[in-house]
Amino acid sequence: MTSRIKISSAFDGGNISVINASEPDNIRVKIPNDTNSKFLQWFYFRLQGGMGEQCVIQFENASDAAYPDGWVDYQAVASYDREYWFRVPTEYIDGKLVITHQPEQDSVYYAYFAPYSYERHLDMIAWAASNEDCITDHLGETAEGRDITLLEISKTQGLAKNIWIIARQHPGETMAEWFIEGLLERLFDESHPVSRSLLNQCRFYVVPNMNPDGAVHGNLRVNSKGVNLNREWKNPTAEFSPEVLAVQKKMAETGVDLFLDIHGDEALPVNFVDGCQGVPSFDVRMEAMETLFKEVFTAVSPDFQTEIGYTPDQFGEANLTVATKWVGETYNCLSFTLEMPFKDNKNLPDDMVGWSPERAKILGADVLYPIHQVIMSAHMKAND
Amino acid sequence: MTSRIKISSAFDGGNISVINASEPDNIRVKIPNDTNSKFLQWFYFRLQGGMGEQCVIQFENASDAAYPDGWVDYQAVASYDREYWFRVPTEYIDGKLVITHQPEQDSVYYAYFAPYSYERHLDMIAWAASNEDCITDHLGETAEGRDITLLEISKTQGLAKNIWIIARQHPGETMAEWFIEGLLERLFDESHPVSRSLLNQCRFYVVPNMNPDGAVHGNLRVNSKGVNLNREWKNPTAEFSPEVLAVQKKMAETGVDLFLDIHGDEALPVNFVDGCQGVPSFDVRMEAMETLFKEVFTAVSPDFQTEIGYTPDQFGEANLTVATKWVGETYNCLSFTLEMPFKDNKNLPDDMVGWSPERAKILGADVLYPIHQVIMSAHMKAND
Amino acid sequence: MTSRIKISSAFDGGNISVINASEPDNIRVKIPNDTNSKFLQWFYFRLQGGMGEQCVIQFENASDAAYPDGWVDYQAVASYDREYWFRVPTEYIDGKLVITHQPEQDSVYYAYFAPYSYERHLDMIAWAASNEDCITDHLGETAEGRDITLLEISKTQGLAKNIWIIARQHPGETMAEWFIEGLLERLFDESHPVSRSLLNQCRFYVVPNMNPDGAVHGNLRVNSKGVNLNREWKNPTAEFSPEVLAVQKKMAETGVDLFLDIHGDEALPVNFVDGCQGVPSFDVRMEAMETLFKEVFTAVSPDFQTEIGYTPDQFGEANLTVATKWVGETYNCLSFTLEMPFKDNKNLPDDMVGWSPERAKILGADVLYPIHQVIMSAHMKAND
Amino acid sequence: MTSRIKISSAFDGGNISVINASEPDNIRVKIPNDTNSKFLQWFYFRLQGGMGEQCVIQFENASDAAYPDGWVDYQAVASYDREYWFRVPTEYIDGKLVITHQPEQDSVYYAYFAPYSYERHLDMIAWAASNEDCITDHLGETAEGRDITLLEISKTQGLAKNIWIIARQHPGETMAEWFIEGLLERLFDESHPVSRSLLNQCRFYVVPNMNPDGAVHGNLRVNSKGVNLNREWKNPTAEFSPEVLAVQKKMAETGVDLFLDIHGDEALPVNFVDGCQGVPSFDVRMEAMETLFKEVFTAVSPDFQTEIGYTPDQFGEANLTVATKWVGETYNCLSFTLEMPFKDNKNLPDDMVGWSPERAKILGADVLYPIHQVIMSAHMKAND
Ligand SMILES: [Ca+2]
Ligand SMILES: [Ca+2]
Ligand SMILES: [Ca+2]
Ligand SMILES: [Ca+2]
Repeated sequence: MTSRIKISSAFDGGNISVINASEPDNIRVKIPNDTNSKFLQWFYFRLQGGMGEQCVIQFENASDAAYPDGWVDYQAVASYDREYWFRVPTEYIDGKLVITHQPEQDSVYYAYFAPYSYERHLDMIAWAASNEDCITDHLGETAEGRDITLLEISKTQGLAKNIWIIARQHPGETMAEWFIEGLLERLFDESHPVSRSLLNQCRFYVVPNMNPDGAVHGNLRVNSKGVNLNREWKNPTAEFSPEVLAVQKKMAETGVDLFLDIHGDEALPVNFVDGCQGVPSFDVRMEAMETLFKEVFTAVSPDFQTEIGYTPDQFGEANLTVATKWVGETYNCLSFTLEMPFKDNKNLPDDMVGWSPERAKILGADVLYPIHQVIMSAHMKAND
Repeated sequence: MTSRIKISSAFDGGNISVINASEPDNIRVKIPNDTNSKFLQWFYFRLQGGMGEQCVIQFENASDAAYPDGWVDYQAVASYDREYWFRVPTEYIDGKLVITHQPEQDSVYYAYFAPYSYERHLDMIAWAASNEDCITDHLGETAEGRDITLLEISKTQGLAKNIWIIARQHPGETMAEWFIEGLLERLFDESHPVSRSLLNQCRFYVVPNMNPDGAVHGNLRVNSKGVNLNREWKNPTAEFSPEVLAVQKKMAETGVDLFLDIHGDEALPVNFVDGCQGVPSFDVRMEAMETLFKEVFTAVSPDFQTEIGYTPDQFGEANLTVATKWVGETYNCLSFTLEMPFKDNKNLPDDMVGWSPERAKILGADVLYPIHQVIMSAHMKAND
Repeated sequence: MTSRIKISSAFDGGNISVINASEPDNIRVKIPNDTNSKFLQWFYFRLQGGMGEQCVIQFENASDAAYPDGWVDYQAVASYDREYWFRVPTEYIDGKLVITHQPEQDSVYYAYFAPYSYERHLDMIAWAASNEDCITDHLGETAEGRDITLLEISKTQGLAKNIWIIARQHPGETMAEWFIEGLLERLFDESHPVSRSLLNQCRFYVVPNMNPDGAVHGNLRVNSKGVNLNREWKNPTAEFSPEVLAVQKKMAETGVDLFLDIHGDEALPVNFVDGCQGVPSFDVRMEAMETLFKEVFTAVSPDFQTEIGYTPDQFGEANLTVATKWVGETYNCLSFTLEMPFKDNKNLPDDMVGWSPERAKILGADVLYPIHQVIMSAHMKAND
Repeated sequence: MTSRIKISSAFDGGNISVINASEPDNIRVKIPNDTNSKFLQWFYFRLQGGMGEQCVIQFENASDAAYPDGWVDYQAVASYDREYWFRVPTEYIDGKLVITHQPEQDSVYYAYFAPYSYERHLDMIAWAASNEDCITDHLGETAEGRDITLLEISKTQGLAKNIWIIARQHPGETMAEWFIEGLLERLFDESHPVSRSLLNQCRFYVVPNMNPDGAVHGNLRVNSKGVNLNREWKNPTAEFSPEVLAVQKKMAETGVDLFLDIHGDEALPVNFVDGCQGVPSFDVRMEAMETLFKEVFTAVSPDFQTEIGYTPDQFGEANLTVATKWVGETYNCLSFTLEMPFKDNKNLPDDMVGWSPERAKILGADVLYPIHQVIMSAHMKAND
């Protein structure tokens, strides 16, 4: 009898290559490379015909991934309804990633992390723009003609602190756009005291998706030109990184008082930030703001911590091709890369869902607490 | 000063070609052809930078459309939030279609009719499958690898009448998939007496989107091969019309007691059905069922009527390449093409929205009333 | 060990008297009389402390109920969340009603039928009034000072057919107000063709609750004066039936073209209507409208039927103290009492919930179909 | 012409006495006393027939209110839909409170603060109990037979910190129950890190409404016996304060590690807490916890502050008849009265709604941040 198994990925963000799916318990697949790139790690596909079968899915080229350490202690996500994504048993053995799962329905989706589609992106932009405190601004377009849209959000027409937040330079880090969705929902809550206070004093500039081409193609790290945008900030080009060029141009108009670049980290099982130590102009004021931000964030969120993270750059050695470093240096402002896990927060793990869209959204809402304290602090006022 | 106007269509179902957008009040565009086809009529694009400007958008090749009559008395739809679509002033003059509209926001979408994306399609399939009375069945795939998914819905495991309903053979007729969404919501209403009665006696086979390739490409009538599926039912091929082949194969397994093929009509400003008169095997039983269906539908829905429609085929001359005729002839069953307007129901017009997703959904729910009466009738029982 | 069982009813519509609740499996209660009345049948109470216990609740005076036949084949309703009401095993033996149920939670409610509180009533009035086609009118007040509120709903300012619908003359027949809620939701659906057509031609006058005093007291049939309002229409008084007086006064201003009085029937396991045959002025036109209404209702709703119902009055013998008869006679119009079951529709039973709020709401929405056909008919136009 | 004005208050929490309503611009009313009490301040009524009229409502006995200072700078609340409550122009002149408002609809409600009905209370209890981490416990009943219900909420079966939170000892302080609703929604958010962390370490004991009798009667401060429950904690009695007796009995079983008593303050336009300084056993550990709680709360919520509040009692002079003092003394634990304004937070005012249900709910959610920090602190662990 022939297998009923059918694997498909011809949809937004879909990414898989089937080697053999003739037997449910021996499905062999490969993760295709990012467009014009050697990177690979993001996968997303639909499996049909597996109800009640023990499905064993082997990713044969898992060891070629951009971050093989990402597979250690990693559990893939699955969904029947495309809304609720749960973790399924996953192992990394002999260089292969292996999902073992018996679907309860005949149609199930598997992914590296809960996807965030371009349709949802456009819906979110449209929803945000319907708020009276928010307008959209067309910054530019990608190589494939997709819009780079900026959201400008404030309750004041006067002088205000300029807070820039960008997400998904790396398109496969979808938790970054979930984070933005949560941040915006909180910011638009007319009754929330932190949001009200911030919007009276600040103007938010939010780019929910820096890399829509890469997102639609199901890439982990690059745009359709095969370029890692987060290595383009020193010398962006119209041909290879128009996304960065467009943002820098707008930043030059507005100035930047605080910058966050939202990411996901494939390996580390925690949420953390990486700041500007090592940037030439790093000074005591920036350091004090970094410290305050981290203290408040730690106080409000058991999902945030400061013990695990990247090793700070030595003074002056920071890579100014990276967004956070470039913005910190250029605007002498508080500037952080915020990293969320693909896996889970090991300090408060959830076996069912691991790190999830819902948790990313709450972290995105809660980041307003440390932002608020920094804005209210003497460090910020000193900058007026 | 340069225009701020930016038109984009690099998204699901997007379709436009910009000639010149340098002045808001003289924007000139063309509607691109369907993929590998001479048909054209569907358009869908985003316009940015037009807030507060009187935007005049001329479709220069409107007279080349598949149905130029479709432009007469037609009003285009627009949306800010991608959920609520309203009509905007539109004229057809000298072979050009002209939209004149002053957007209230800087980002606005225009379309031939409210779009229904592939992402929404996949969400709807997944939502339906979460119902305990519904399973999915993978019928086959398109030339571009998209899934043709069948929903099977019933409360009985025993003998049941087989009701087949397909939609969007013509992908630009998006109202057809809105209709399906409304029909499914009603069918899944556990408290609705008609749904409960039907699911006890019938098995529904629903294909919400027969032509996902064409839908994603923003085509009006054809799939990615340039083929009009509704002329393929006599001799479908694996190369050019695998969508039809897959459905016919499954129909052969299940049989068909009642068939509806859901469409939109570009020209006629009413809802109507077109039956099987003219099909060789058309007989008094089929005619009686057609009459009963139309009587009940007319009684329940002021949005349905029988006065305006297509001219019935003469006896024996029906085109068996068309789904409705082929199914009626093959299964000697009640078989209708159901047509909704792109414009409005002129008997109960709504100047704000015209014919709309919401109204299509209600019609889709209400079609269960005539189906129920036909199923309960002696004609149907006579067939046991 | 003492029983943890605690029964309370000190809330809106609550009605029970505890004889002994010291043992979960031998709880004995009585149904208190309606206020100033010998009627009794409505019960509603909260039971705490029963989780995991087999609770046996005996209603010792069940045989004294207004309609002992109502207990035959009756299943009581229960709810944990006060929203979803399900049926629990209930028997009528030796003149006692006995509920046997093992609650899954420590707090559970039991009732004769899903309650509809005065708070929900006020919320519904306020919600309705927020619709642009609806205004409220204060008709008068009850003996205890509660408002008798009329909803007037129309899209036309001109000549219109006047449709009066009243509910809950008998306060324990809560399904009547659920029915109104469903009717209003449908009527306010801006996309529904029947609602749009009706509101263009008619003015609806809806009294969602004729007897709020009785409802709050947990009465089955009477107001706080002990009076059955549906025997007061011939000679209502300010002292005993101000509710009827207020409605009749407003009717005299507006006239009546169609009247529905919504009720629940304790004994019959079906939905049905009772018309005006037997009223002195009953004529062929009224009879034709009754027939049309019943035919259309039967065609659209498997939850409606005409086989079982009350025996029609002989010509001229109808009791003009009853609302339906009095209105039919006074305004020579189509006038029906619409009865829903406390039990279930035996032709399409639902073992889980029996007749329910959701099903009553759908019937309330669906009654617009027959109303629409009658309004569109020659009989109605003849009356212009 | 006679006035169409009709004022009614025969509903849950309704409280007004009409002197004369014959002219819309000269409506004169009195606030009835609390049941068996000389206190008065809470009002709540429906006004009909005022659409388009300038309605001037004079409260003639405003100067007899419990807190006449409460009227200074106070704006009454109004609602059409009973959900959204907005402020209306209100003045306190010559000992009279005067509302001047032109209603947009014929039915409008006015109140001292957004009401919270007993029906909503029962719904909230039932909703909470549906959560798998929550059970209900019947503590006792009021003089009028209403249930005093406790919610117990935890994810652990083991040793846990016992957090007691009670609300509405003073029934007219409805913001206290809105606060509880917000706190519970946050606590039941399965993705929220603070809630997850707290429920792993603590057991919450929540009494959403200490005084349901007073609430239904529309009292400001007392139960149906005329007793101020917050002066009964030293010597509660079964006859006059069974509500307090029931809670103290349960506290004796569980112990208390942290206590909050939620109130509204008639005069002060801020949110604040009042602790246990002045209680005999007040010590450095309690003081340190008070300080930490206030610091964290201030850091997260611009709606909280510590500058304005009650004058701390001198050492040893605290009134042990008050809940907070009695609990703090008895259990040597962190114990606060939390006060919200009837007016607004003057540091972040909202002219449209003032202090509101939505803002009270957010404060209730946000109080979990300081609770969490206290629970995680060394002070708390020192107590193990
Ligand atoms: Ca990254
Ligand atoms: Ca068509
Ligand atoms: Ca009755
Ligand atoms: Ca107080």
